[in-house]
Amino acid sequence: MHYYISNKMRNMKPSAIREIFKYAADPQVISLSAGSPSVEALPVEAIARIMNEIRDNDLNSALLYSFSEGHPPLREALKKHLQEQHHSFTDRDDLLIVSGAQQCMDLAAKVLCDEGDTVLCEDPSFIGNLNCIRSYGVNLVGVPVREDGIDLELLEKALQEQPRVRFLYLIPNFQNPSGITMSLEKRKGCYELAKKYGVLIFEDDPYGDLRFAGRPLPSIKSMDTEGLVIYARTFSKILSAGIRVGYMALPQEVFGKFVVAKQCADVHTGMLSQLLCYRFLTEYNLSEHIEEIGKIYQRKCGVMLDALDQIPAGKLEYTRPEGGLFVWCTLPGVEDCSDFCLRLIRDHKVAVVPGSAFLPQEGGMSPSFRMTFAAPTDQQIVQAVEIIGEAL
Amino acid sequence: MHYYISNKMRNMKPSAIREIFKYAADPQVISLSAGSPSVEALPVEAIARIMNEIRDNDLNSALLYSFSEGHPPLREALKKHLQEQHHSFTDRDDLLIVSGAQQCMDLAAKVLCDEGDTVLCEDPSFIGNLNCIRSYGVNLVGVPVREDGIDLELLEKALQEQPRVRFLYLIPNFQNPSGITMSLEKRKGCYELAKKYGVLIFEDDPYGDLRFAGRPLPSIKSMDTEGLVIYARTFSKILSAGIRVGYMALPQEVFGKFVVAKQCADVHTGMLSQLLCYRFLTEYNLSEHIEEIGKIYQRKCGVMLDALDQIPAGKLEYTRPEGGLFVWCTLPGVEDCSDFCLRLIRDHKVAVVPGSAFLPQEGGMSPSFRMTFAAPTDQQIVQAVEIIGEAL
Repeated sequence: MHYYISNKMRNMKPSAIREIFKYAADPQVISLSAGSPSVEALPVEAIARIMNEIRDNDLNSALLYSFSEGHPPLREALKKHLQEQHHSFTDRDDLLIVSGAQQCMDLAAKVLCDEGDTVLCEDPSFIGNLNCIRSYGVNLVGVPVREDGIDLELLEKALQEQPRVRFLYLIPNFQNPSGITMSLEKRKGCYELAKKYGVLIFEDDPYGDLRFAGRPLPSIKSMDTEGLVIYARTFSKILSAGIRVGYMALPQEVFGKFVVAKQCADVHTGMLSQLLCYRFLTEYNLSEHIEEIGKIYQRKCGVMLDALDQIPAGKLEYTRPEGGLFVWCTLPGVEDCSDFCLRLIRDHKVAVVPGSAFLPQEGGMSPSFRMTFAAPTDQQIVQAVEIIGEAL
Repeated sequence: MHYYISNKMRNMKPSAIREIFKYAADPQVISLSAGSPSVEALPVEAIARIMNEIRDNDLNSALLYSFSEGHPPLREALKKHLQEQHHSFTDRDDLLIVSGAQQCMDLAAKVLCDEGDTVLCEDPSFIGNLNCIRSYGVNLVGVPVREDGIDLELLEKALQEQPRVRFLYLIPNFQNPSGITMSLEKRKGCYELAKKYGVLIFEDDPYGDLRFAGRPLPSIKSMDTEGLVIYARTFSKILSAGIRVGYMALPQEVFGKFVVAKQCADVHTGMLSQLLCYRFLTEYNLSEHIEEIGKIYQRKCGVMLDALDQIPAGKLEYTRPEGGLFVWCTLPGVEDCSDFCLRLIRDHKVAVVPGSAFLPQEGGMSPSFRMTFAAPTDQQIVQAVEIIGEAL
């Protein structure tokens, strides 16, 4: 038997992070690889209480089919939340609940792009979404990220030169993997360029609530007077990644097609998960919870930076993020650090993600690697960074 | 702003069932439309107990990221279940857990088909999966369903005539919407044709456990010595539709690509839902539960057939299913019953699904409509069928 694989999927490989995630299941390995939230940051007491409430009051709703658009009360609560807390939902928008933020990109790539079309993205960028875009046979063109976000000149050049650009994929807050936050000026610049060239923006904001230093900046969505921005958010980093609930605010003009795509993909998002999010959002003090987890990540990021500061100067460069889950490290004078990362996991049982995994151009080289301070314990962070220091 | 919509999605419309589902939210409407399980058949006590166990023992696992392939213990339990209960998992297969059975088709259409390729299916067939196939720009070619299943001669003709047939989509047990069960002879015939023409079979078996009359027949997967069959099943009809857990047994040669597609779609299926399924499958008596819900559906189907039998002869024809959730009704001498169905919901507040929704060729006509006896109460069934009888 010859198994035919579609053109778009034929050359797809599993995400390097998901593969490293398997190594990380070895209890001897210290994993600084996956973007998992800290166990400390899970509101387990609230969730246990909510599970009791669902069990006693909502069990039938949790177990039966619901709407493809999402559980109506959760949709309303999220519209209000985005409006009041983030100024990121307008009268021209509608709101779709999805099975984790990854599905926002899955639907966008499917609805907005034909095979051979182009998506512009930051270089480096989040491998999960890059792979998702690739899996629809769509070309990725990367634009370098500077210290204050994407390079606007090169972005405009790409918009002028690339044919059939369907959208611009951006992570303005604590970018994955670089940890960099896009400046307000550049956010405005991106929006103006999108308007000028008639191109949509896919604004991915999984980490927006995880700021622990500096001042919050408005989302690009908050500037969206023309209906140009698809704004993707998630409960993964503030409530739970395992329950798989994300949501997106998007222009009403395209909403209907996204709902059809959602129906075709998985009918609707799991109701047990949606009810959990709904009760957490409406009955608990979300701001207080976000403040608490911000403190946890601030401490854990500090532990990692302190440990990194012990490594002799000149051996390793690294970002000092204002939020999110990641520190981005660069080996000076090195062309590619994949071998170093492989050696780390194999010989020293420390898992980090090589920067080459995050390149829009596959097969490229990167002197950088990504580490998370979220999932490991403080002790593991110190120990792992010491091991990295010795291995350098 | 001009919003570009991809070629494959441009002409996609929402599923007629999902749209009728919205009418059905009106408490005045008796809905015989959606394929929802009966509330009576929900094992709510077991689920409430399992929620307590997860809360007390597995909460971190429920809340953190997991593997794209599925929760490893659930995968192992399902392999064993398919092997021992259904003889439908071989050494050449692997098992993927997905977010409801709909996602089995989503992944199959994406991994196996390019735009312009062809999928052969039963005519009529399940609208959710037909729409899913369409949403990848894939052509559907229908082959008529007879009283004992798909017409094998016409199937072979289609295999000879149609270019680039990537797979054959079949629902052998209590087919949706017709309620028809494919004979053993035809199951073997389909497999032989797939082998002869080197084409995969997508065997969809959401209702297999819901047999309440006649003798169980072996799945096509159980005959699969060559690695030709993708076998899709779900927890939706025996445990809960709202938690969105399905699974598929498929040849190892294509498994890796399905896992990558799953990663790109939604990373992994919700862990709370997977843990619920795992404990239900391994700690509760599934056979006993299936026997109990079989009795419920037997009774409810009987209530519907008894009520239909009151309608004066010649006015309405209908199937007498051996299992599943649906009765398929046909208006004799009528070309298309869409107007009748519209009148039913608008003037008489009874929702059924017009047969035209289930046609592989869009815009076609059908003298039939689908009714479910699962979700409505016995009283609602009797009342709705009386209303239908009067409206005829």
